Amino acid sequence: MSIHYPKTIENLIQQFSKLPGVGRKTAERYVFHIMKQSPGQIKLLAKDLNNIFDGFKICQKCSAFSEKEICPICSDDKRQENLICIIANFQDMSSIENTKQYNGKYFILNGLVNTIENIGPEKLNIKKLVKHINELIKKNGKIEMILALSPTIEGETTSLYLKRILKSPKIKISKLAQGLSTGMSLEYVDETTLSNALKYRNELK
Amino acid sequence: MSIHYPKTIENLIQQFSKLPGVGRKTAERYVFHIMKQSPGQIKLLAKDLNNIFDGFKICQKCSAFSEKEICPICSDDKRQENLICIIANFQDMSSIENTKQYNGKYFILNGLVNTIENIGPEKLNIKKLVKHINELIKKNGKIEMILALSPTIEGETTSLYLKRILKSPKIKISKLAQGLSTGMSLEYVDETTLSNALKYRNELK
Repeated sequence: MSIHYPKTIENLIQQFSKLPGVGRKTAERYVFHIMKQSPGQIKLLAKDLNNIFDGFKICQKCSAFSEKEICPICSDDKRQENLICIIANFQDMSSIENTKQYNGKYFILNGLVNTIENIGPEKLNIKKLVKHINELIKKNGKIEMILALSPTIEGETTSLYLKRILKSPKIKISKLAQGLSTGMSLEYVDETTLSNALKYRNELK
Repeated sequence: MSIHYPKTIENLIQQFSKLPGVGRKTAERYVFHIMKQSPGQIKLLAKDLNNIFDGFKICQKCSAFSEKEICPICSDDKRQENLICIIANFQDMSSIENTKQYNGKYFILNGLVNTIENIGPEKLNIKKLVKHINELIKKNGKIEMILALSPTIEGETTSLYLKRILKSPKIKISKLAQGLSTGMSLEYVDETTLSNALKYRNELK
């Protein structure tokens, strides 16, 4: 006899199975873990889910989540205004800020062009970006734009698209360096990474 | 500047970080995945969480989740009634049923004795088990009990405890065989597993 889970449990397992990288077994584990918590804790989790979009806005300039109309980074005068880093998602901002190496501003595309999943440039924040860039140029004359997108097909497609539509003598476009990751053993490096590491080799000074 | 997530998002990340095996990064990934879904889908997930305990009961005999007072396995006359498999959780029932090798009944302890986490036998379904076993003996004369608990310290402690309190000439107690897992390479087997495999070696016939 194969065991049928009660419908309410099965529903939740199905929902958790949709999370990225979560299979059926892991979803079951999560759901049974949740069921061991107190009803109060479960209600709290449900409430937090219902309220997830409350209490914050989307920054009018860079599209970051923010408690004000303009986020703290966009309204920070100490940061370089003519340097803008284009990222796919809000999380990427957190990764870059953690390096403590970047002192410019950001712009969030809200995804990447993905032909397989039918996400064209029109589904990203491109119009807002173009408007934003034009305002920046008007104010600063020349600007630099760093495309900080993942070195995947989606990231490369999006970079190429942006490079094409934003071509202007007033915009210097760069992208994140590709090469060997720190701690990577040369014998396990894939061909593309090694080709890039060779192609973009740095002169020792 | 380190990025602060909006409070509602941070709350949910914290909640997801509590799931077994989920760290901060994975929790962030889950939450941002959920945020990409439609508000309707998120409401549905919250609703499923709120309703998780609705619409099912705990089987009066074996403690399985069930739509009736007595679960389908306990009320199945074709299954051996004098053979009872003791398991820690409902999920384990599913694993054993999937082998299609077992035709007895079950009893769910609802956990394992865990001295570190302060879970003593009194927190498990032991009273219910003793009552159930006594009824089975009254009806069937002799019974066999399989302790199908994980070969961990918690599982072994629970097995020892059950063996002690249920000692009776009317109960034959066995436990799952310990030895090599299928597909395991001998050079990677840990000492305890190998000792057990030697100790419980089977005669080739």
